[in-house]
Amino acid sequence: VGNPPFSGERLFEHPPAGVVMGLAWTAMGGSSLYIESVLEAPLTTESKPALTKTGQLGDVMKESSSIAYTYAKAHLLRHFPHLAQFFQHAAIHLHVPEGATPKDGPSAGITMATSLISLAANTPIPPHIAMTGELTLSGKVLKIGGLKEKTIAAKRSGITTILFPAANAADWAELPDFVKEGIEGRPVEWYYEVFDACFGEAVARGEFAKN
Amino acid sequence: VGNPPFSGERLFEHPPAGVVMGLAWTAMGGSSLYIESVLEAPLTTESKPALTKTGQLGDVMKESSSIAYTYAKAHLLRHFPHLAQFFQHAAIHLHVPEGATPKDGPSAGITMATSLISLAANTPIPPHIAMTGELTLSGKVLKIGGLKEKTIAAKRSGITTILFPAANAADWAELPDFVKEGIEGRPVEWYYEVFDACFGEAVARGEFAKN
Amino acid sequence: VGNPPFSGERLFEHPPAGVVMGLAWTAMGGSSLYIESVLEAPLTTESKPALTKTGQLGDVMKESSSIAYTYAKAHLLRHFPHLAQFFQHAAIHLHVPEGATPKDGPSAGITMATSLISLAANTPIPPHIAMTGELTLSGKVLKIGGLKEKTIAAKRSGITTILFPAANAADWAELPDFVKEGIEGRPVEWYYEVFDACFGEAVARGEFAKN
Repeated sequence: VGNPPFSGERLFEHPPAGVVMGLAWTAMGGSSLYIESVLEAPLTTESKPALTKTGQLGDVMKESSSIAYTYAKAHLLRHFPHLAQFFQHAAIHLHVPEGATPKDGPSAGITMATSLISLAANTPIPPHIAMTGELTLSGKVLKIGGLKEKTIAAKRSGITTILFPAANAADWAELPDFVKEGIEGRPVEWYYEVFDACFGEAVARGEFAKN
Repeated sequence: VGNPPFSGERLFEHPPAGVVMGLAWTAMGGSSLYIESVLEAPLTTESKPALTKTGQLGDVMKESSSIAYTYAKAHLLRHFPHLAQFFQHAAIHLHVPEGATPKDGPSAGITMATSLISLAANTPIPPHIAMTGELTLSGKVLKIGGLKEKTIAAKRSGITTILFPAANAADWAELPDFVKEGIEGRPVEWYYEVFDACFGEAVARGEFAKN
Repeated sequence: VGNPPFSGERLFEHPPAGVVMGLAWTAMGGSSLYIESVLEAPLTTESKPALTKTGQLGDVMKESSSIAYTYAKAHLLRHFPHLAQFFQHAAIHLHVPEGATPKDGPSAGITMATSLISLAANTPIPPHIAMTGELTLSGKVLKIGGLKEKTIAAKRSGITTILFPAANAADWAELPDFVKEGIEGRPVEWYYEVFDACFGEAVARGEFAKN
């Protein structure tokens, strides 16, 4: 029945800052779904802020990236205001490989916000975390579909910690033990829990501190 | 059953800077697929950056050119910052002949990035290299289709080195010897390997150095 | 079966600068296809460059005019830089009569470039030259269709020299002698050969020289 829509490989052993592994789910199974954010022009005091989106994103996913963008700015403004200045002059290009595969849905919300914060802070996230969850502007993490398939895909990609919405805790509880073996499932209700899982160690090391 | 969508000729014996041979693949076979990048207006300290795209490109290929543009800027900014300044004022026109043939797909990603870097550095690439591969914003080279047909087309066009994604290494291994005879296949996992193959000698000659 | 899509008359005995005879080809035969370029506003040091296109042009033909525009600028910039300044302030209107007939295809590429160069240099081309050929950004002239029908139409319009792509040389060789009688066919591989045929005498007369 044709090729799987995503190749499902692990693209990056050590993703650079701005690159975060999300998880997708289709009728053909789960797969990794990376979000890549980079500067599309050098950051100067005169450069204009922008968010360019590519990857054959559907309307919901485009809106999702706008929400992640607004949220990431607000999150940093509240907690690390010196880092939030980044967004005032950053022309950001957010891409979701693979380029020929149409993608849609809101469940990459927390992944996109994490990608943008990682870029702003110039801090990669630990390489064995993947995540899935819709994000609201207030930072609430909403329920997603396909947790079983996404968990299988995450394990196949070498992931040892998966972040998923607390609203999916019952789905997680129902997963067979062999699926959950070797992978820690961490339910998150608010984005700050995602932030702690991804950047907690970097904050402790002083990487988010003002110079 | 009608004309082949591409004429499959070798258009340039010695492509100028900005012109790179990619490879296309349709149900009717493979063919060369050139990418041409030129300045559409003189470069001055006041000219505004832009990327115009022509050649009946579909949505995926248009996005692919945006990704190549962002990547080329980031690549030069990291490795040859004096050359990256080019993009701050360059109004670039990227065209994919032949103009009447609709084209789509992400597999010209590395070809487009190479075309843009070649233009920025004003350095042609060696005339007997062709390439195919999807590019991500982080510089990862992703799997493509039709490697066999593309290899046949490359040979027909006088190519002696073909760059293809490392993820297609198994496809390459399975090609019959008579197809691979006289052509070197070089799997690439990251764009910097494409860069080395295309510009390594020019860098060694000092052509990328700051004056 | 209805009116012919083009009237096929000779519109201009002595086309002014900016007007060049191309050739079209439909299921109903060949016809002349003029390209007209004029300034749509006075040229001042403050006027902004622009290219307006009319004549019921399809997508491919619109792109073709963009390619011709970029190419014409680059060609003059390289060979006659004082004339290239024209394009920095010229608001140009390019029209393809007859206005009610939908037109498409890339084969007017070299005609459009010639029209724009003729306008920029304020130099008409010799009245008995017509031409057909797709143009790439690098100045390569690509193969077209309908050479026989176009040649017949050119003769009917009093043309004595027809420029066509070198890639159509075999088509030319196969034309019956009675079709070729009284018309010189000149195959061109690169745009500079078109330039020489159209402007060579004017250059020799000093018309392209800097004042």
